[in-house]
Amino acid sequence: MKIIVDVFSGDDPKALIRGTAAALNVYPDVRVVMPGDPTYLERELATCDYDASRLEILPASEVIGNDESPTMAIRQKRDSSLVRGASLLRSDPEAGGMISAGSTGAILCCGIFVVGRLRGIDRPALAPVLPTVDGGSVCLIDCGANADCRSEYLAQFALLGTSLMRTLCKVENPRVALVNVGVEGHKGNMLTSQTASVLAEMPVNFVGNMEARDALSGKYDVLVCDGFVGNVLLKSIEGTAANVVAEMSEVLRRKLPGSENSELIADAAREVMRSYDYNSYGGAYLLGCRKPIEKIHGAANERTIPYAVGQMRSMILAGLTDSIAEQLESMSRKPGDEK
Amino acid sequence: MKIIVDVFSGDDPKALIRGTAAALNVYPDVRVVMPGDPTYLERELATCDYDASRLEILPASEVIGNDESPTMAIRQKRDSSLVRGASLLRSDPEAGGMISAGSTGAILCCGIFVVGRLRGIDRPALAPVLPTVDGGSVCLIDCGANADCRSEYLAQFALLGTSLMRTLCKVENPRVALVNVGVEGHKGNMLTSQTASVLAEMPVNFVGNMEARDALSGKYDVLVCDGFVGNVLLKSIEGTAANVVAEMSEVLRRKLPGSENSELIADAAREVMRSYDYNSYGGAYLLGCRKPIEKIHGAANERTIPYAVGQMRSMILAGLTDSIAEQLESMSRKPGDEK
Repeated sequence: MKIIVDVFSGDDPKALIRGTAAALNVYPDVRVVMPGDPTYLERELATCDYDASRLEILPASEVIGNDESPTMAIRQKRDSSLVRGASLLRSDPEAGGMISAGSTGAILCCGIFVVGRLRGIDRPALAPVLPTVDGGSVCLIDCGANADCRSEYLAQFALLGTSLMRTLCKVENPRVALVNVGVEGHKGNMLTSQTASVLAEMPVNFVGNMEARDALSGKYDVLVCDGFVGNVLLKSIEGTAANVVAEMSEVLRRKLPGSENSELIADAAREVMRSYDYNSYGGAYLLGCRKPIEKIHGAANERTIPYAVGQMRSMILAGLTDSIAEQLESMSRKPGDEK
Repeated sequence: MKIIVDVFSGDDPKALIRGTAAALNVYPDVRVVMPGDPTYLERELATCDYDASRLEILPASEVIGNDESPTMAIRQKRDSSLVRGASLLRSDPEAGGMISAGSTGAILCCGIFVVGRLRGIDRPALAPVLPTVDGGSVCLIDCGANADCRSEYLAQFALLGTSLMRTLCKVENPRVALVNVGVEGHKGNMLTSQTASVLAEMPVNFVGNMEARDALSGKYDVLVCDGFVGNVLLKSIEGTAANVVAEMSEVLRRKLPGSENSELIADAAREVMRSYDYNSYGGAYLLGCRKPIEKIHGAANERTIPYAVGQMRSMILAGLTDSIAEQLESMSRKPGDEK
């Protein structure tokens, strides 16, 4: 299978190039296309040990920066690594998916305007799959692609998240919850009140409202919210985890002095932080486009790519996009129609 | 000074009654009025050791439950502990403030319809003051009173939060930040984009957008957002802290076996959790009403009350409401008017 890896949209292209070479060594059935400056890419790749026959360079002279207006950038920088990659994803039947370290906005625009949306999807959404405290996973959708949403969008997110958890995490009947300020039915804002009634009519396993404190509890498989709320939720989890690990380590170093203890405490801190650190578990999926796109952190490092490639590979093998399309299709059928 | 304490709206009135008796022992200059069932109160208070001359019972036969519709409950349960307390707060010049363990909605309705709003405030907001990682404090406003907001409301929240941090935490020029999905100016949803420009014109120290991961960083003194986002932010901090402390403790017990270590680890966990546990630092302030109201958790316990009474006492001594009213007044003056 062919996966497009856009390394230039990230902060450290060199690290992502090394990571891609490493990924090729991990997955012998994967071929990579890398859009970008050939001279730069060849120079960096020359320092890596990998199977060059499975890596193809797609010349692209420009890079879209994090601070650029996405819509403008997509229109003006036709020869950027991101737009070139997205165009190939759209046109090449062999291209199964794309990984990019670009900005959410630019990737979203490419997904909508270059790759194209699936029929029945108004707004593609960004969905990370996070580890839960009980060792499972939960999909948070949307986590930043759509800051302003309507209830129909959230209903579509529920469907996209359900398909993701079915295909990627093999959860048979994902429990979908609506991120809200309380579990009681009457709580929430205008958007959640409207969405709750729409979700109740959807062919998803809607279990009701949930509170942010239970996001990683393992009680839910898909958390539905608008992209603003999802982003706040994700970043507060990330920030709080870092704070608490640091505070706990400091208190313990005081209670358990000695360099040996301090090393064990540092090990424990690293072990706990691993599940709260995006770089260690790849990225977030842009769902709802004709082909899967995975967004990795702009600050993604060498370790990120093999993990992200592995995730994209499973999504392609699982036929995620087709299964989403099928469900949208079956939903659009009027009740009573033949299946 | 006189403080009204509504213990019946909480899950465990008996614990809150004991806590109130304890608070009276801590603050000799405080008098308490307790609305509720006299027989019940007298029976419980008889078991407490406190100065009965500073506690007055205000008969009230009803209790407003957590699951009742706030507006309906306020209208129908005129003889509830919450409504009776709020009415006294409104009518008695000696009553400086009220503490209640009731639901946010019921307390908000009482604040608006019984106690009354300050001139220039459209929506009172709920604002907890949270400890930051650098040992300071930050005010999160709104954290749940107003799920749907307009930019003018958020601008008023900025002013209320600024006054709170000035009077309660003695921060001279509180740094006000807008909770957003990124620090860049162009990021956000419709509400934050509109609010950012309004805040820039306000007589507050607006330092721009902030990301949820930096909420407790100590970089900001006042975090402004709508009540839905604030509630999600607060609860995800609370939930993540509990998860991370538990995970870190488990990993360390594995790395540092032995009952002695396990006790030290448990101590450290408790020490860290203290700053993430509401009960240990009282409640949230309902700001924007004619007199201060403090909402404590429904699950508040005996320890909560002395802390909450201490906070309310400082707010009354600092003349919070008057100082807010003055600022609103000075803002409403047209530029060029005589001060």
